[in-house]
Amino acid sequence: MDPITETAPELDKTLALKLAFEPIIEPLKVVEQRIRDQARAFDPSVEAYVAYAIESHGKRLRPAVALLSGGATGAVLSSHLNLAVVVELIHAATLVHDDILDHADKRRGQPTANARWGNSMAVLLGDCLFAHALRLATAFEDNRMSRRLAEAASEVCSGEMMQTKRRFDMQLSVEDYIRILEKKTGALFAVATELGGFLNGASPEVQTGLHQFGMRLGTAYQIYDDCLDLAGDEGKAGKTLGSDLRRGKLTLPILHLLQSSDPEESARLSKVILEGKPEDFTKLVETAIEAGALRYAVTAGRQMLNDAREHLDGIPHSNFKESLNSLCVTLDGMIAPMAQ
Amino acid sequence: MDPITETAPELDKTLALKLAFEPIIEPLKVVEQRIRDQARAFDPSVEAYVAYAIESHGKRLRPAVALLSGGATGAVLSSHLNLAVVVELIHAATLVHDDILDHADKRRGQPTANARWGNSMAVLLGDCLFAHALRLATAFEDNRMSRRLAEAASEVCSGEMMQTKRRFDMQLSVEDYIRILEKKTGALFAVATELGGFLNGASPEVQTGLHQFGMRLGTAYQIYDDCLDLAGDEGKAGKTLGSDLRRGKLTLPILHLLQSSDPEESARLSKVILEGKPEDFTKLVETAIEAGALRYAVTAGRQMLNDAREHLDGIPHSNFKESLNSLCVTLDGMIAPMAQ
Repeated sequence: MDPITETAPELDKTLALKLAFEPIIEPLKVVEQRIRDQARAFDPSVEAYVAYAIESHGKRLRPAVALLSGGATGAVLSSHLNLAVVVELIHAATLVHDDILDHADKRRGQPTANARWGNSMAVLLGDCLFAHALRLATAFEDNRMSRRLAEAASEVCSGEMMQTKRRFDMQLSVEDYIRILEKKTGALFAVATELGGFLNGASPEVQTGLHQFGMRLGTAYQIYDDCLDLAGDEGKAGKTLGSDLRRGKLTLPILHLLQSSDPEESARLSKVILEGKPEDFTKLVETAIEAGALRYAVTAGRQMLNDAREHLDGIPHSNFKESLNSLCVTLDGMIAPMAQ
Repeated sequence: MDPITETAPELDKTLALKLAFEPIIEPLKVVEQRIRDQARAFDPSVEAYVAYAIESHGKRLRPAVALLSGGATGAVLSSHLNLAVVVELIHAATLVHDDILDHADKRRGQPTANARWGNSMAVLLGDCLFAHALRLATAFEDNRMSRRLAEAASEVCSGEMMQTKRRFDMQLSVEDYIRILEKKTGALFAVATELGGFLNGASPEVQTGLHQFGMRLGTAYQIYDDCLDLAGDEGKAGKTLGSDLRRGKLTLPILHLLQSSDPEESARLSKVILEGKPEDFTKLVETAIEAGALRYAVTAGRQMLNDAREHLDGIPHSNFKESLNSLCVTLDGMIAPMAQ
């Protein structure tokens, strides 16, 4: 495996993702249908709410890695499709609750559940999705599936809580921050890839490798998402830049900036963050870019993607494995330009 | 089995409950300890929040019926203790989210999670408890345990959502309302008693009987709680009367009042509810009492408790079975005086 040293040329991200999804186009369609079918499992009076929340046209990254991991370890079985549905529903539940926390009124161009029906309904809708996901997880023959999925769901919730608790905590260490991302985002990717292997009876070593791969891919993806919030293309991202910062969510570039600045400068920056004036934020982001803090975060993300790929070493060559690799390369191609 | 025809004398509710819990005093202590131990399963930064939410000194009714159901079908096993922990954690999770929905600042004399740490932390704390409960549920040897528990959790969430959706819906039928209570409260009691039998290898008939018992006991308990909100002793209840009504939560007495009044009076009452003036509410509650609507709800609750007891017929006599019966008699003794 060649490490990623060159930056991929500017590319259509959707197209690049689609290329990586090539070997699983058909099963992914079935997964999409099964996800949509889930709404019907609910009481008719609740069904339309659930349908709205799950038909949100996300990238379905977590289902994709579950399926690719299945293909890379033998075959994409029907049980992989169910695994893909469960991880996406857990993800959908956390998004509904995230949007409440963030007072977000749009997601992927659509009004959020809280914007449409208020916080109360959104809290309960998230709960419904979450409970239903874990209910589906108990339908696998082997107990281990539901156990690992519930463990991952628990990690995701703990990670979210740790992050929310530490809003505006300027002392948050980079180490603790990465640990939060591993729980909040990495854990669900990790369980998707790990169980993709488990369902094919892959060896414990291969399962561990896949877990590590998913953990790193997911965490790097979150770092990318965090950087995008500071330095993305406002028009393309469809959201206001610096919104994490406004809510006190200190992401990797900002934490590095705070901790690599001299005490006086760090105190000044902390004050800017606490005061939360939009005009100061633009300057703060510029400072982060000039001081190399954004480059630091991008490098950390790229390193994580290189690490991820190394964990696939024990898996024989296949177009599925190639796609898992491609996902890393694609993400790298998305994250790298931000440091330039 | 004698039907409950006489009203039990005014009694100390806590004492009456304690008497019903007599055969499970020791296992209930272990359950209490195991519930408290759960906080330690979380990241240290989250632990204290979880500890606060689960050390709330509730009545532990759901754990109690799980244990009694175990005793009544053979023996209270270690797995019954775990079942008791899981149902109480699911309940604790829903309480944390309920308090957000209701903007409640106190529960059992203590500040609620949302009052102490804000809605965001409370949403996530509820999620953590919920995920952890379902994670514990996957530790049982038989898949059926986690499946039934996740199904019940899903029912609870759907019921909550149906209720919230139909706030201020004056057309809500009594039938639909009872269905909401069965999901929201009955389902968790039902799964506690049903699985209490399942863990002892009870016959499908006995499990079904226990399920029906728990469903009716839980639903009657919710009817009692709803009546208490209208006609309880404000001092004793520790909360403001009529708070359901103010939030548009139309409970059994009010629904019956609306639907048994002539169209003109019903329209007038609907207007009072929509306008939400506290001084009109006092009058509305008086009307509900005078028109026999409270008596109607109390009678429905008492009938449900009688039905509950009939479902224990297939279970041989034991002090555990007697306690399940006693719980119904105790609850009846609490609900009956409200119609007088």
